[in-house]
Amino acid sequence: MVTFEQFKQLDLRIARIVSCEDHPNADKLYILTVETGTERRKIVAGMRQYYSKDELPGKQIVIVSNLAPATIRGARSEGMLLAAKDDKRLALLVPEKEVSVGSPVS
Amino acid sequence: MVTFEQFKQLDLRIARIVSCEDHPNADKLYILTVETGTERRKIVAGMRQYYSKDELPGKQIVIVSNLAPATIRGARSEGMLLAAKDDKRLALLVPEKEVSVGSPVS
Repeated sequence: MVTFEQFKQLDLRIARIVSCEDHPNADKLYILTVETGTERRKIVAGMRQYYSKDELPGKQIVIVSNLAPATIRGARSEGMLLAAKDDKRLALLVPEKEVSVGSPVS
Repeated sequence: MVTFEQFKQLDLRIARIVSCEDHPNADKLYILTVETGTERRKIVAGMRQYYSKDELPGKQIVIVSNLAPATIRGARSEGMLLAAKDDKRLALLVPEKEVSVGSPVS
């Protein structure tokens, strides 16, 4: 069990995917550029089996915006995006209606 | 900043809204019944200004499934759902494609 205070430590926000490129060193990973409302960031995401590069730009997604940066196979990732996964599919989490980029999630 | 370990303490999962009723003591709140894949739960959500009761049943949503239960205006809430909010709209977070109910989010 977690408390509401623990949940509130996470800064979940709506971002928009600007562009997408293959990770040069990992064939399941993309390096996404996302707009957070205040800046652009690079996020490494394991989505290459599930989404084509062309269908990602423009989509609103959900990011953990205050996650400590990590280096994943040599590429820096500044946050992570949220997706649901079952045994067949991976689905990005999206807002059901478009909202302003940078909107908080709670 | 939060660590990935802190993020992983949250159990975020896909659930489906089964039914929706007005909270008897709070005019901005609904009491939703959601299917989590293993059980049904009641979740209190402040969505009445943004969604009609009729449009909610059937939707896949995202819940924090291991949040400590709370009593909100006299109604027990077993978890919370995630939504994005800007100054005009509130939008449920949904998986972009349907996935199995109970699928983990990461």
